[in-house]
Amino acid sequence: MHEDTIAAIATAAGEGGIAIVRMSGPAALAVADRIFCGNRKPSRVEGGRFIYGTARGTGPENRQTLDEAVVLIYRAPASYTREDVVEFQVHGGMQSARRVLRACLESGARPAEPGEFTRRAFLNGRIDLLQAEAVADLIQARSDRAASAAMEQLEGRLSARVNALYDQVLAIAADIEATLDFVEEDLPETVLEGLTGRLSGACREVMALLETWEEGHLLREGALVVISGKPNVGKSTLMNTLLGKNRAIVTEIAGTTRDTLEEQLILAGVPLRLVDTAGIREVDCMVEREGIRRARDSMERADINIHMLDASEPAGDGEIELIQRLDPDRTIVLRNKTDLGHRDAGIPAEFACISCALIRGEGVEDILDALTRKLGQETAGQPHAVISERHRALAQSARENLIAAVDLVTGDRGDAVLLAAEHLRDALESLGLVTGRMYSSELLDSIFSRFCVGK
Amino acid sequence: MHEDTIAAIATAAGEGGIAIVRMSGPAALAVADRIFCGNRKPSRVEGGRFIYGTARGTGPENRQTLDEAVVLIYRAPASYTREDVVEFQVHGGMQSARRVLRACLESGARPAEPGEFTRRAFLNGRIDLLQAEAVADLIQARSDRAASAAMEQLEGRLSARVNALYDQVLAIAADIEATLDFVEEDLPETVLEGLTGRLSGACREVMALLETWEEGHLLREGALVVISGKPNVGKSTLMNTLLGKNRAIVTEIAGTTRDTLEEQLILAGVPLRLVDTAGIREVDCMVEREGIRRARDSMERADINIHMLDASEPAGDGEIELIQRLDPDRTIVLRNKTDLGHRDAGIPAEFACISCALIRGEGVEDILDALTRKLGQETAGQPHAVISERHRALAQSARENLIAAVDLVTGDRGDAVLLAAEHLRDALESLGLVTGRMYSSELLDSIFSRFCVGK
Repeated sequence: MHEDTIAAIATAAGEGGIAIVRMSGPAALAVADRIFCGNRKPSRVEGGRFIYGTARGTGPENRQTLDEAVVLIYRAPASYTREDVVEFQVHGGMQSARRVLRACLESGARPAEPGEFTRRAFLNGRIDLLQAEAVADLIQARSDRAASAAMEQLEGRLSARVNALYDQVLAIAADIEATLDFVEEDLPETVLEGLTGRLSGACREVMALLETWEEGHLLREGALVVISGKPNVGKSTLMNTLLGKNRAIVTEIAGTTRDTLEEQLILAGVPLRLVDTAGIREVDCMVEREGIRRARDSMERADINIHMLDASEPAGDGEIELIQRLDPDRTIVLRNKTDLGHRDAGIPAEFACISCALIRGEGVEDILDALTRKLGQETAGQPHAVISERHRALAQSARENLIAAVDLVTGDRGDAVLLAAEHLRDALESLGLVTGRMYSSELLDSIFSRFCVGK
Repeated sequence: MHEDTIAAIATAAGEGGIAIVRMSGPAALAVADRIFCGNRKPSRVEGGRFIYGTARGTGPENRQTLDEAVVLIYRAPASYTREDVVEFQVHGGMQSARRVLRACLESGARPAEPGEFTRRAFLNGRIDLLQAEAVADLIQARSDRAASAAMEQLEGRLSARVNALYDQVLAIAADIEATLDFVEEDLPETVLEGLTGRLSGACREVMALLETWEEGHLLREGALVVISGKPNVGKSTLMNTLLGKNRAIVTEIAGTTRDTLEEQLILAGVPLRLVDTAGIREVDCMVEREGIRRARDSMERADINIHMLDASEPAGDGEIELIQRLDPDRTIVLRNKTDLGHRDAGIPAEFACISCALIRGEGVEDILDALTRKLGQETAGQPHAVISERHRALAQSARENLIAAVDLVTGDRGDAVLLAAEHLRDALESLGLVTGRMYSSELLDSIFSRFCVGK
């Protein structure tokens, strides 16, 4: 348990009906007693109850009413942090919450650091690190699906999976360490064979975990969808059609869009970052050339490329070559302006290709379907456990150590078992860092710094 | 009581630790039963308690966990609206609250209109209209003092004052109506004399109320402080000094600031809207001329004018004439650039005049003191009851009717008492509309439309 009592505004800044000031720590009830004025003192109220009264200033000549307040009493360990927690519900807007927070700080609490409430929930054993991270993911979720994925992580499904894997590797490591007592030559062949099978199984499970990263990454950061193509094929029109508003400036002069524009859109529950790029051609204008450099850059980072052609004109120099350099799994080719003509372009057969006349609204449904299908490929699979960038690095390290252990056990080095045991210890450490069985205060600092103050 | 059960997100939009979905109405508990999943059903929980569990989707194949939830149970009439109220506390950010709100709406609640919770609190007699308006003022308060003033109004101090006045006028009206039974000539002289004194007393009280408007207006909308003066006297430098950051672009070329810039600053608890104007001079440039027109316009609307001169140069043509046209009570004259010289400018003695060298930071404290003093003059007096624009119009009408009644009673028209009684009824109606003893649904619509949805 912590000795400090921390306090912070727990609701978002801005105009709203209700704001909350939250305190956690051994003095939370005593501090609340000093501020709250009502029929009963908070310290006399049992957990699970709320009382109504006023919050008052604390100075001797400053007992002014700060606001009406509903005060929620949580008694340790039945609280978010497993400590005594008191919440003041006051009127929204920032003044009331600020005034009450100030009174808390003047009465013995100290300001909470970002994520400190959740950090205490972790340190006091109520949730593990994966669940703590899910709290931040849930708060920052930009789509319903992202929220669902975060909620599943908060409910502990990913934790259960990683813990099972940890236990599996731990058992293998224990068995390997046990063999260290034998002289190498005395080891029964079957022991090592059994270990190899179990190690490969653990390795496959780590790989499966790693495969969920793609979906997690898309749900968290959004899929990067880049619209590319020569000038004046209708890239900005497509962007505007998808967004349903005139974000990009559309003209008939080639080269209108000079910078890359980024807009957000949610499709099939996945947030998209839609980037409209400068048309690709040789140009003299410095500004435009910089735009084209950024366009090429965006195309390389894209999760999905929508490459556009003018269907009414023959494919230009290098156009087909450019398409051939793209990844068919991540590319949709659009042949726009079919209202003006329809020439055969010789698009390689492995590319999804859609004809459309955006100016008339023709083909828009087909484009949305194709996008949804591509996103579906990216986000299919286990929906219940998606890992983040941090987990990915740790899982990769675990995988490498498990592979090294397999190689050693199946090889014929004299000290193989000793070395394999070391690799397994490293793999365990990586997996332990995912759920927080092991942690350093630097790791916690970096995780909780992305939280808001009141959580 | 209302038959509908209303629901809305009650916390501000954006990232925060906690968000609240609030429901009010006869079905609030039944709706909560459908969504909440935990050890106990909300409808089985007594008022004043909160329970912990999860909020779940409502579709038959869609019972997915939406979020963890702490659910507060209020039983009528012990709630904000005097109806059954249920609040779902879920994780902050917008996804969780939106998902839970959607589940409420799918389970029998309907979306709340702006201010509808407070409107119900008023219609169900928990608060009067002045207190309802104070809720919006408190949420929108931009300074500590504005919040204090709103809180005092919410506690009913202004209500008590207006109600006392109402009762006073009502008693006079009753006595006057009683005299209508007498034949005019038979009325004892002393009755009318007594009435005159009491009417004048009520009239003085209305005037005193009206005087609080100025402070209320300053606290609510902020005092408009306009910085004026010829080009290049240091207006933008003053603005930047007061704000402590480089908001305006400062150069040595006269005429740099073309548009009026507005910034917010809080001084002595009063929010200031600080406006930096284009320098006043004769110019050809159309853009600049428009800026100067706006500058003159701002000066006329200003609560406080800071007019700046260059102390190192003789006063220019028309400069002193321009100052003389300003109101000394609302003007501070600044003689800047004393580091470059100090000529006598002949500022009229009735104006507060401060010398400064802003470029060296000299005189800044004096300027802040002078501003605080001017603001103090505006916001002195009764701090416990400040009226708004709406109340001001009604109080003015009440005052006019009271004055008319005094004139009639002290005059010698034959039908004076009859007419005075009518004026008093009108005065009562105005006062009744202030506290909501009388109201129309149009009045309520206009008052509650300035609320946020969740209040």
